[in-house]
Amino acid sequence: MLAQLFKSSRNVHPAPTPGKVRFVGAGPGDPDLLTLKALDALQAADVVIHDGLVPNQIVLLARKAVKIIPVGKKGFGHHTPQEEINARIVENALQGHTVVRLKGGDPTVFARLDEEIEAVEAADLTYDIVPGITAASASLSAIGQSLTKRGRNASARILTGHDMKGFADHDWRALAQSGEVAAIYMGKRAARFIQGRLLMHGAAPDTPVTLVENASRADQRILATTLTQLPDLVDQADPKGPALMLWGLSPRDAAAQDILVQELA
Amino acid sequence: MLAQLFKSSRNVHPAPTPGKVRFVGAGPGDPDLLTLKALDALQAADVVIHDGLVPNQIVLLARKAVKIIPVGKKGFGHHTPQEEINARIVENALQGHTVVRLKGGDPTVFARLDEEIEAVEAADLTYDIVPGITAASASLSAIGQSLTKRGRNASARILTGHDMKGFADHDWRALAQSGEVAAIYMGKRAARFIQGRLLMHGAAPDTPVTLVENASRADQRILATTLTQLPDLVDQADPKGPALMLWGLSPRDAAAQDILVQELA
Repeated sequence: MLAQLFKSSRNVHPAPTPGKVRFVGAGPGDPDLLTLKALDALQAADVVIHDGLVPNQIVLLARKAVKIIPVGKKGFGHHTPQEEINARIVENALQGHTVVRLKGGDPTVFARLDEEIEAVEAADLTYDIVPGITAASASLSAIGQSLTKRGRNASARILTGHDMKGFADHDWRALAQSGEVAAIYMGKRAARFIQGRLLMHGAAPDTPVTLVENASRADQRILATTLTQLPDLVDQADPKGPALMLWGLSPRDAAAQDILVQELA
Repeated sequence: MLAQLFKSSRNVHPAPTPGKVRFVGAGPGDPDLLTLKALDALQAADVVIHDGLVPNQIVLLARKAVKIIPVGKKGFGHHTPQEEINARIVENALQGHTVVRLKGGDPTVFARLDEEIEAVEAADLTYDIVPGITAASASLSAIGQSLTKRGRNASARILTGHDMKGFADHDWRALAQSGEVAAIYMGKRAARFIQGRLLMHGAAPDTPVTLVENASRADQRILATTLTQLPDLVDQADPKGPALMLWGLSPRDAAAQDILVQELA
């Protein structure tokens, strides 16, 4: 009751000094993959502005927040324009609130962090960034593979399917080499395009590709296939959740890890 | 006292059924960057086998462990051979223990996970992997930058300085392009070699390079420089801790983030 009163009084009398902004990684979805620091930030937040990808279980950890603002960016459906997200962050922090901008995964990986920081800086607000477990890391853990491995690949790439149409030819050629590994975010819709480019640049048709849908969540699905069958797998499996594509990797040993692997004949 | 007795009795009467192995990411060093899942795993561990890079503060969270086994791999100093690490993991799990193999950062990134999983599988033991925050993520957070950014780079690379002598020419050429971004692990010692290769393949001498030493720890240092001055900076600053090299990125705004940035004239 006291907490309730305290909350209301805050709205009526906004603090005179500006608050601050914390960009916080919510991780891939499993609430246990939050960091302790992210949990602390959520529990201390006055305002939480979160993506559609962040599960409710995590958002609800912000127990003392006076405002929870969803800024849905869920796949290709309705989404809040970036300018509006920026404005919401800034206006709430200027009112004296500690604003947690909660992003699925890691704020430094395909999260449009730069635009938001620029808005925060333009308003002379301070900020910090709390890293999170990115989908690639959760997906690799799920299939029992490393991003790199001696004798296979000394480097790996992180890229997004959204931007692949601007991908240079030298990138495709490098990616098509035997032993290359890449974690492709938001690659579901680009599956047929990716297949075409890689085959054109000489990639082996039987190169393994694994899709991890809803990595780390209860409804995680692991879809193992090859470059040849990739687009058909995507059509048939029709993943609705966020899916990470691991180019050049197959699940190590499904049985030992008690995971569901779906393979197409 | 009861707990003490319980611990001793376990050593005397090893469980008849085999235990299991958990590969757990300890994150970059700040204990607050452990995930809740990693904390649970540590608190439930019977045996912890940890790298030299994992701070004591984190190792000591394994309160009920009957054995804590350091397998020092600290930079270029003394280290335990990989075969011995594998043997320790397996022998302790076969004794019925839940073994936490605690790795600095993320087990899926430059952690020689494959060798250890193969040993565990060969012994018919089960395992799981708990991802951790990798040094690249903590370093990007510290300098306020994203791995990728619209109009700058659509993909980024993760690589290790240790393996760069086997790096193909096409990789160097791609990396030397304007706007490329890479997170280079263990690149300190290779700084002069990296500089030579990148310049040879046409990289701009004023390309920004940032070294983050001891990312996320109390003694974190951020060293901002350019390709031209990189080897001299490494010589002068002489980082003793693990350092991540961010190719193509400079700290966004040191003042706003209250971080120490050392620049060479």
